[in-house]
Amino acid sequence: MNGLTIHDITPGQSASFTKTVSEYDVYAFAGITGDFNPVHINAPYAEGTMFEGRIAHGILCAGFISTVLGTHVPGPGAIYISQSLAFKKPVRIGDTITAVVEVAEIIVERNRVRFNTRCVNQHNDIVAEGESLLMPRRA
Amino acid sequence: MNGLTIHDITPGQSASFTKTVSEYDVYAFAGITGDFNPVHINAPYAEGTMFEGRIAHGILCAGFISTVLGTHVPGPGAIYISQSLAFKKPVRIGDTITAVVEVAEIIVERNRVRFNTRCVNQHNDIVAEGESLLMPRRA
Amino acid sequence: MNGLTIHDITPGQSASFTKTVSEYDVYAFAGITGDFNPVHINAPYAEGTMFEGRIAHGILCAGFISTVLGTHVPGPGAIYISQSLAFKKPVRIGDTITAVVEVAEIIVERNRVRFNTRCVNQHNDIVAEGESLLMPRRA
Amino acid sequence: MNGLTIHDITPGQSASFTKTVSEYDVYAFAGITGDFNPVHINAPYAEGTMFEGRIAHGILCAGFISTVLGTHVPGPGAIYISQSLAFKKPVRIGDTITAVVEVAEIIVERNRVRFNTRCVNQHNDIVAEGESLLMPRRA
Repeated sequence: MNGLTIHDITPGQSASFTKTVSEYDVYAFAGITGDFNPVHINAPYAEGTMFEGRIAHGILCAGFISTVLGTHVPGPGAIYISQSLAFKKPVRIGDTITAVVEVAEIIVERNRVRFNTRCVNQHNDIVAEGESLLMPRRA
Repeated sequence: MNGLTIHDITPGQSASFTKTVSEYDVYAFAGITGDFNPVHINAPYAEGTMFEGRIAHGILCAGFISTVLGTHVPGPGAIYISQSLAFKKPVRIGDTITAVVEVAEIIVERNRVRFNTRCVNQHNDIVAEGESLLMPRRA
Repeated sequence: MNGLTIHDITPGQSASFTKTVSEYDVYAFAGITGDFNPVHINAPYAEGTMFEGRIAHGILCAGFISTVLGTHVPGPGAIYISQSLAFKKPVRIGDTITAVVEVAEIIVERNRVRFNTRCVNQHNDIVAEGESLLMPRRA
Repeated sequence: MNGLTIHDITPGQSASFTKTVSEYDVYAFAGITGDFNPVHINAPYAEGTMFEGRIAHGILCAGFISTVLGTHVPGPGAIYISQSLAFKKPVRIGDTITAVVEVAEIIVERNRVRFNTRCVNQHNDIVAEGESLLMPRRA
């Protein structure tokens, strides 16, 4: 239940989480956030867009990244300070997304770790990438 | 079903979405993303942290912001390019969160709109703030 | 798995289903239907209305009535032709609702049964009442 | 957050909401209402019925209509007095349902608006139609 402290973390350390995105994930995400943008929940509309079908909410990728940070590295006890994310490709229902975080910078005196983060699909295409800044739990 | 084009958008234009965050929201969000960090779903553990109780996933705020962008301004047809978010205060179960987006910059020649975004709680404390960049739908 | 035929049904026959309405029920119902009316999911807003707090979607009562008709009397195999419902009192989170259906008319030659339907709360106040018309399964 | 008053509403005014019905919607609706009629959640049983497969709960259409009334026209602050609905065709998993409400009668002296309501599928077949009576919010 205890995550890593800054002294347990090494440059380049990485961790990941993988999930095949289901229709349920997209629909339940819409139901929690209220984001009923038709590109997510209206199939004929979505087929008429450049995406040619329903796509997942981009923020779902931010959620998968948060999963890795909050449960693996640094793990429980860390405080999420900020994150950025650029959306590169759509995520479709049935895609298998792997969220990867890599330690980019360790700032011991301020107890902060900067991560490069990305989500890739089953074709290893980057669908989202960015950075996250966290404070690992104190010893 | 059709969102705004860049010509429909004015500097300072804003929109919002409000929801009282329920225990269900936190649990279902955990179930979709896999973020079972105990601070979200383990009450005794969470009570022992500096938060003194379970808190919502910070990314839920990113979801509420996406709701406003995807369903109000610019609305359907917009493409989400990137977003950043800094987490300022915890969101607790029972808090009422208002996500606000405000047009900060309109870049007509590249069809991009930059928004200042924030989530405030029922005490009007900012719990998260950042920026989002979108391409509104083309005419 | 087989419901009643019209010959198994008697005038005045009744059946019921009872459930305490949870916050989850209201939030998940909003998430399925897209009905994010703030009276259902925004506690401070709802407290400022005549209802003085969040209320369930009225159609949830129609769902409970359908539960009785579809699983008890007439039960599986019946076809729901039409229903009407008047909303008499709000249903609050925590209320225990009993949906009751009573056989009002049996039209053998057209294989139709008309039911009087109502939902009452834990104080035995009628919160919704109406009628439902069904075709029981054929023998 | 404020819906229309009766003075903002015009005869023939209409609004709509569209969603592709997913297996998740049907299952979650069953879980909320308790309507586990096998025609909704038992595929082999449902394949043996005249519907030749699982169908959504008819009341889900009533929910979509309520979404339009509660969030678009008349919108927040309105009170739902009564509704009726006739079920014309089954809704299957994967169907895209559009709920449409149209102002049929405006009764200013009693602050009531009567709507014709219908749900159509992706083939523009009417799957459900009826009426709804509401009191819009007072000025």
